[in-house]
Amino acid sequence: MPLDLNSDLGEGFGPWRMGEDAAMLDIVTSANIACGFHAGDPTIMRRTCELAVAKGVRIGAHVGYRDLVGFGRRDIAIAPAELRDEVLYQIGALAAFARAAGDRVRYVKPHGALYHAAARDRLLADAVATAVAEAETGLALLGPAGTELEHAANRAKVRFVGEGFADRAYTATGTLAPRGVAGAVLTPDDAVAQAVSLALSGTARTVDGPGAVAVSVASVCVHGDSPAAVEMARRIRGALDEAGVPVEPFG
Amino acid sequence: MPLDLNSDLGEGFGPWRMGEDAAMLDIVTSANIACGFHAGDPTIMRRTCELAVAKGVRIGAHVGYRDLVGFGRRDIAIAPAELRDEVLYQIGALAAFARAAGDRVRYVKPHGALYHAAARDRLLADAVATAVAEAETGLALLGPAGTELEHAANRAKVRFVGEGFADRAYTATGTLAPRGVAGAVLTPDDAVAQAVSLALSGTARTVDGPGAVAVSVASVCVHGDSPAAVEMARRIRGALDEAGVPVEPFG
Amino acid sequence: MPLDLNSDLGEGFGPWRMGEDAAMLDIVTSANIACGFHAGDPTIMRRTCELAVAKGVRIGAHVGYRDLVGFGRRDIAIAPAELRDEVLYQIGALAAFARAAGDRVRYVKPHGALYHAAARDRLLADAVATAVAEAETGLALLGPAGTELEHAANRAKVRFVGEGFADRAYTATGTLAPRGVAGAVLTPDDAVAQAVSLALSGTARTVDGPGAVAVSVASVCVHGDSPAAVEMARRIRGALDEAGVPVEPFG
Amino acid sequence: MPLDLNSDLGEGFGPWRMGEDAAMLDIVTSANIACGFHAGDPTIMRRTCELAVAKGVRIGAHVGYRDLVGFGRRDIAIAPAELRDEVLYQIGALAAFARAAGDRVRYVKPHGALYHAAARDRLLADAVATAVAEAETGLALLGPAGTELEHAANRAKVRFVGEGFADRAYTATGTLAPRGVAGAVLTPDDAVAQAVSLALSGTARTVDGPGAVAVSVASVCVHGDSPAAVEMARRIRGALDEAGVPVEPFG
Repeated sequence: MPLDLNSDLGEGFGPWRMGEDAAMLDIVTSANIACGFHAGDPTIMRRTCELAVAKGVRIGAHVGYRDLVGFGRRDIAIAPAELRDEVLYQIGALAAFARAAGDRVRYVKPHGALYHAAARDRLLADAVATAVAEAETGLALLGPAGTELEHAANRAKVRFVGEGFADRAYTATGTLAPRGVAGAVLTPDDAVAQAVSLALSGTARTVDGPGAVAVSVASVCVHGDSPAAVEMARRIRGALDEAGVPVEPFG
Repeated sequence: MPLDLNSDLGEGFGPWRMGEDAAMLDIVTSANIACGFHAGDPTIMRRTCELAVAKGVRIGAHVGYRDLVGFGRRDIAIAPAELRDEVLYQIGALAAFARAAGDRVRYVKPHGALYHAAARDRLLADAVATAVAEAETGLALLGPAGTELEHAANRAKVRFVGEGFADRAYTATGTLAPRGVAGAVLTPDDAVAQAVSLALSGTARTVDGPGAVAVSVASVCVHGDSPAAVEMARRIRGALDEAGVPVEPFG
Repeated sequence: MPLDLNSDLGEGFGPWRMGEDAAMLDIVTSANIACGFHAGDPTIMRRTCELAVAKGVRIGAHVGYRDLVGFGRRDIAIAPAELRDEVLYQIGALAAFARAAGDRVRYVKPHGALYHAAARDRLLADAVATAVAEAETGLALLGPAGTELEHAANRAKVRFVGEGFADRAYTATGTLAPRGVAGAVLTPDDAVAQAVSLALSGTARTVDGPGAVAVSVASVCVHGDSPAAVEMARRIRGALDEAGVPVEPFG
Repeated sequence: MPLDLNSDLGEGFGPWRMGEDAAMLDIVTSANIACGFHAGDPTIMRRTCELAVAKGVRIGAHVGYRDLVGFGRRDIAIAPAELRDEVLYQIGALAAFARAAGDRVRYVKPHGALYHAAARDRLLADAVATAVAEAETGLALLGPAGTELEHAANRAKVRFVGEGFADRAYTATGTLAPRGVAGAVLTPDDAVAQAVSLALSGTARTVDGPGAVAVSVASVCVHGDSPAAVEMARRIRGALDEAGVPVEPFG
């Protein structure tokens, strides 16, 4: 089974930079590109799309709350209809740069607080999925499997792609263990091993049981916001290559 | 010769409203819809696109400087490459709402300070025209004829549509007379007459000569930011109808 | 017992206007002036301070979430320490305009979603009260009596001023009845009567009992966002004057 | 003669960082702290004020155009009255944090495009100086000597403090040589030497003559936006200490 690696990119704004985009684009197969609401500006969006196309990495819209100062990490009690519009706006803006770079947007991934809110709240999940359905034919929605977001994608007839995390343990029911729980964050060695087990056997460690749990994952998220994170991503990519897992864009 | 009437619409933001959009959409044939940089927000953009489609009015992207507090009316010394990206971003965002409403963006018109800057500055004009060329096949660029903007459209192989003003006099060379000049702003009666003469004979009053000057105009801009402005737009539309001028979208 | 009338003012932004500020400044005795985060810009803040000083109306800082598009009406899950800083920033900014107009800021009132959040959440209430205590000696905090905000003011040794609503019924425990409840919103005539009873007997109508409830109110909030609202405020002011209630700034 | 060293600090925003603030606060005697318009947010402003106070560094308001994405480096054609208000707003906001940290704002320095615009344009210079005069008694205005900004400070009865640059050559008339001119940017060794000569003899290198020119400088600006810049600032500080120049806050 092939595995996709995705990462959050284009997260600077104006004079400020964040993340090692060039290095990450040599490691991952899907780029979640910020669209200007929680990070990213038009010039960064263009450059990131061009870099992704040059390196054969797939372009996704990383949509977030309109909250630069909070980097989209704070819940905002937005009305679902307005959320739908804010998401559609962001997808449309990125689509123009993807096309200008010779490709197009292939998927949408919610960012930060929106990621979690849309996973647990049916109305917000429907708002996101509806925007994805309206935006362009064939866009996928990338997010946590088995959540409201997946159900909403099904209702909107949008293809859903389950995402997993290499460095995080799961509960026995297959959902991500909260960070606060003991053992929820894996050591680097365990994270590398989990990336491989997600690909080879579709299983992840559990925080509350002895064994492993089946997790439906077609893409694994890796981070590039520090040199250590990039190194970790590189190790994961290397282990997958070594294990014979084809690392390639999902679907 | 048919004539197009265009107006700036969707110029609210969040809780704030501006202009009589519903009334204007019964008068004009092209809607310059703000894209969120100088005015407009995603929900207003969606609603304005839906209203335009419902009333058979053509959708255009009214792109401006990123300057809500200044309403895009202040010059900003932006680098041309960044301007190109900011314009493309705005077109892309509106395109998503136009498509969601069942239509698509047909043209781009620069707003406020950008309108004037792109008319006189070759590099800024090229930035705007390049963004229009990149955005979608077949987009037109609407602006003042005979300016750098028209030359830039030609260089970018973008169709240019000349815009005129009913309530403003021109100079003998066919350019708009500056507001400060005596006689530059016409009386309501003269403005109505000029709208008809622009359509029937392609001529406008001159501020510096006895006669009229040929002006290449396929669209006339009317305003809806006050009840008096709406009434004025209605009179112009009525006079054109009475004179047998087909009022319809350009080209 | 004198009564203060307060109203939200200076709620435009850039080209957009909201509310009948000049009319309201002839009616109220305290002006809650927006500070640029949910509404208001520097030029509007200056003008509103100057108008308030010219009309002898007291200046208060109307502090809100950083959310122009949502007008500060949406909950934002901000960390208390960051909220404290955002509130202090806003008070400081308005203080400069109040001083330039020849007066100073006398009180702080939270706006919109922050008003309600600080009433029910101890940590957010402490954040607001701490900012008020840090800002300038002698600032009061205006808000709903008997809530976390009042407790927090006490902890921060900030003077608390209870605010009531003329047009809203209360529960038997003296808290505002939620809008959804039958009878929660009073008719105009009842609202005028309640303003007078709040001043003369310190009582308000209850939604869930036959009689009246004691409410600790030194200021009543009136609105100016529509001609009807201004007319209502004028009637309340007239009824208080007629009943011999001195309408003057609190404390 | 003592010399002040100033540096731009607190230039992050939300999740983004810029500059080595802690290191620079061990080197300089005056901190130009961004106020949220071109950089800086309330939490960064508080932290930077606290750090400055802890290290005995004087607090100044680094005021800029409202332009986060452009970092205040782009000219904006703002009306002077609005500029005055935007500057006053920023000073007031920072003043609240300076007071909360146990000190107060001592001076104002325009940032980026505003620095240059206010140096050459009388109306903009008056706008800045007026805001400084309105803000608090005794605020100084820091900027390039001999420019419109100095004249405006004199008209507004605001104390003006001339600022020089260690790493830049001057023209024979005592103004900064434009970067484009050959020899305008000094080598590190020459910059260190010039810092000392500015302090000891009040002279700087000229780009267009053999000798030196008298420059009225009470403060020298050093940068901390890269490790190399910090190292340079440290060398300048060391050379001044060695030459027996007291490095201390101006006036």
